Amino acid sequence: MSLSLKVAELIKMLPDAQLSGHLVLKEFTGIANLRDARSGDLSFLGNAKYKGQVKDSQASILLLPNDYEGKPKDEQLFFRIKDPSWALAKICESLERKLSPSVAPGIHETAFVEESAQIDSSATIGAFTYVGANSSVGSNCKVSTHCHIGAGTSVGESSILHPGVKLLTRCVVGKRVILNAGVVVGSDGYGFDQSEGMHHKIPHLGKVLIEDDVEIGANTCLDRARFEETKIGKGTKVDNLVQIGHNVKIGKNCLIVAQVGISGSVEMEDEVIVGGQAGFAGHLTVGKGAKIAGQAGITKDVEPGAFLKGNPALPFHLAQRISVLQRKLPDLFNRFAQEKTKD
Amino acid sequence: MSLSLKVAELIKMLPDAQLSGHLVLKEFTGIANLRDARSGDLSFLGNAKYKGQVKDSQASILLLPNDYEGKPKDEQLFFRIKDPSWALAKICESLERKLSPSVAPGIHETAFVEESAQIDSSATIGAFTYVGANSSVGSNCKVSTHCHIGAGTSVGESSILHPGVKLLTRCVVGKRVILNAGVVVGSDGYGFDQSEGMHHKIPHLGKVLIEDDVEIGANTCLDRARFEETKIGKGTKVDNLVQIGHNVKIGKNCLIVAQVGISGSVEMEDEVIVGGQAGFAGHLTVGKGAKIAGQAGITKDVEPGAFLKGNPALPFHLAQRISVLQRKLPDLFNRFAQEKTKD
Amino acid sequence: MSLSLKVAELIKMLPDAQLSGHLVLKEFTGIANLRDARSGDLSFLGNAKYKGQVKDSQASILLLPNDYEGKPKDEQLFFRIKDPSWALAKICESLERKLSPSVAPGIHETAFVEESAQIDSSATIGAFTYVGANSSVGSNCKVSTHCHIGAGTSVGESSILHPGVKLLTRCVVGKRVILNAGVVVGSDGYGFDQSEGMHHKIPHLGKVLIEDDVEIGANTCLDRARFEETKIGKGTKVDNLVQIGHNVKIGKNCLIVAQVGISGSVEMEDEVIVGGQAGFAGHLTVGKGAKIAGQAGITKDVEPGAFLKGNPALPFHLAQRISVLQRKLPDLFNRFAQEKTKD
Repeated sequence: MSLSLKVAELIKMLPDAQLSGHLVLKEFTGIANLRDARSGDLSFLGNAKYKGQVKDSQASILLLPNDYEGKPKDEQLFFRIKDPSWALAKICESLERKLSPSVAPGIHETAFVEESAQIDSSATIGAFTYVGANSSVGSNCKVSTHCHIGAGTSVGESSILHPGVKLLTRCVVGKRVILNAGVVVGSDGYGFDQSEGMHHKIPHLGKVLIEDDVEIGANTCLDRARFEETKIGKGTKVDNLVQIGHNVKIGKNCLIVAQVGISGSVEMEDEVIVGGQAGFAGHLTVGKGAKIAGQAGITKDVEPGAFLKGNPALPFHLAQRISVLQRKLPDLFNRFAQEKTKD
Repeated sequence: MSLSLKVAELIKMLPDAQLSGHLVLKEFTGIANLRDARSGDLSFLGNAKYKGQVKDSQASILLLPNDYEGKPKDEQLFFRIKDPSWALAKICESLERKLSPSVAPGIHETAFVEESAQIDSSATIGAFTYVGANSSVGSNCKVSTHCHIGAGTSVGESSILHPGVKLLTRCVVGKRVILNAGVVVGSDGYGFDQSEGMHHKIPHLGKVLIEDDVEIGANTCLDRARFEETKIGKGTKVDNLVQIGHNVKIGKNCLIVAQVGISGSVEMEDEVIVGGQAGFAGHLTVGKGAKIAGQAGITKDVEPGAFLKGNPALPFHLAQRISVLQRKLPDLFNRFAQEKTKD
Repeated sequence: MSLSLKVAELIKMLPDAQLSGHLVLKEFTGIANLRDARSGDLSFLGNAKYKGQVKDSQASILLLPNDYEGKPKDEQLFFRIKDPSWALAKICESLERKLSPSVAPGIHETAFVEESAQIDSSATIGAFTYVGANSSVGSNCKVSTHCHIGAGTSVGESSILHPGVKLLTRCVVGKRVILNAGVVVGSDGYGFDQSEGMHHKIPHLGKVLIEDDVEIGANTCLDRARFEETKIGKGTKVDNLVQIGHNVKIGKNCLIVAQVGISGSVEMEDEVIVGGQAGFAGHLTVGKGAKIAGQAGITKDVEPGAFLKGNPALPFHLAQRISVLQRKLPDLFNRFAQEKTKD
């Protein structure tokens, strides 16, 4: 990959930045963290705890917070700015546009669009994508290859569907939503009635509703509700290979890391953070702002703001304390045996 | 989603039901549980523990067991029937047929079917689906878009393949099987021989056999056997994102919840229930009717009827008891330290 | 499946083998392990611990190590050879070629290849596969159906892409790599900046680099790096449904079993073995040759050669010991209570 951006463009892009230092170089050609950066690279201080690494960094260009006190070395340029991480994101977006030139709007010659589907003229529909009856794709959407947009499903403006996304029937996707490759939206919920020792499928007539600004990771599955809707709230970001069961309601601005499993009818309030591979039993409520450690097993309601760990899940500090004591169990059993001998 | 069904149709659909109450309304327009139902909705008492919610339910139509003793309110209709859940399922199936009008049989113009493949004339083959040589698709099958049916693979009558299902070569799928979106059947088993520090692939010549009435969840993977077959028994229901290794044999009417991992050569007898994210080491036998809690780690054979939890897995009640005692470890260590001081 | 190979072919295939015994049969028609094999089957002693099963095996043909001392029964043929497992693999490869006759090279009539893509004339491109601009596919590659090869991505010679593999833009796949069905390579990393309570996407400009002789399991996801590359080292084998985060570096000849989750920026050295469903927190180093038990939760750096288990992970033998003692906790609490009573 060849990243490159002219210093002059950078200055234009960050009009509020205070510059110091000198640079013969007229462009930077890579981005790296402080430690790995070499001459020609741009680097940045995004987290105050790495402040000590700035003075040894070989980067040619450094994005630093306004209160950083050091001085640039020879052939080094400092950009002091309010939020270096944010500035970096802007630069990256610009580079991304260069690296992946935008595809012209329109429907690929190999795509198949049912007559009653409504596709905005500014949207892109990729090769081998199928768009079902009575569905709609909003303005500036980018639908890649091998996608399936089921009958009656709508995709809001500026959303992105990566290759092989499957949106089944009657689902609703908001604006600026990103669905990574292989995502399945609207698979049947896992619900069966038992009679005479056999499991009979319960039809799932509901839908999945994905609100604006959500991102869903690769190969993640979202089951449709039995009657109403499975819902992912505005601004929530779900990682890869996550399972979200039928009738689950997830609030706004949650973070759900890879391989988490959320059973049917869980209600998660806003701003919850869930570590990788954690699992939730069905029909629970998880309060606002709760944090769940990776691999935790949640089998009861979670209070707002709680921080839980382990299976069964305990308050984080108690779980940590018990972990430490467990390591001392061999010693405790030994000492107890000695006490007995003394008796 | 607009659900609606005329009361007259409902009466015809449930000829054994005993009606009581009056309703001006001529159709219901939604389905909801007892608590959430509003006027115009149909609701149901599927589980006796919710009996108390019937009298406060705002539903216009209620499906109730024969022995329910209360009376309908004004503008409320009771249908007393042997099994309300079953009745509901029938109603839902009927609604589902209305919501998703059946696609006409036939091969989509964009599909590609090898000459030697045999497709029943009542089957549907969706857009961009590939059907390989010497394969067969039975009567009334519904194969959606972007599916791959490998060479020599057969799909029994009335089976449903959702979008993007991949059936690799020489596999056998029974009748009335449902494969959700993104399912992979017949991927190579994870088996390597080591020599000189390198891992050499072991060819997997076997197949996957899926018996009748099985359902497999979205993005679940079933590896083919080394020589013989990986088998999923009749009536077993597997949830999303499950991993089933090579040579695994799963019995009849098992329930395997999302993200479970079953290593190679595990033999699971009939009617086993496995909670989400549980894992099984290779070459184990799991006895008939065993229950495995979510996130359990099974590393030894499991007796028929056993109920295990945790990793290492223990009988459920012992595991619960130990969990409680672990929470008391800080106290035990404190008290033990005090005893020592007394000495 | 009908496996069959003539005895004469077998003798030609294994010129170093020492034969003993007699067989009227002119070909074998199945392969099975020692215990399951019946007359007409070939079997093998791959692991010395099954030596005792040879004398009771009903197999017609047996592959045995040079030092095996028993004698063939009537109608049984022994092939003594240095490495029976290796011999078996060779035989299986030969059978595999028969079972799945190689597809003729060339681009399927339904595939879509951008003009600037370079496809070697000996490569096969399957039905409905999309090959993007400025990408390349090397000699003897077999790309199956419904694959996506993104712009600027290269695939080295003799690699195999099973159905529905998605290689996003600017990735690099080495030689003799096998990507099983549904693999996603190059999805966006899970990285967000927070500001004003919202999560803002961090662009991921890097790539994924898969070195030679790697195999990746079905529906596994590999996220692209933020700037540089996510890397899978030569000869490493990754199982199904694994999550590999952005900027992860995995060494050579590692084994990573199904459903493992590896968070961003983990560095794993060579020859690491990771059991199923284990999870790694971000930014860790895992030393050469370390072994991680299934379902372990790794939150700290791992020493080379360490063998860890549990969450929090402990040295394997300590973890085992603690598991045993935990089962004795009810007894310990009882005894402690009795001591107190005595006081």
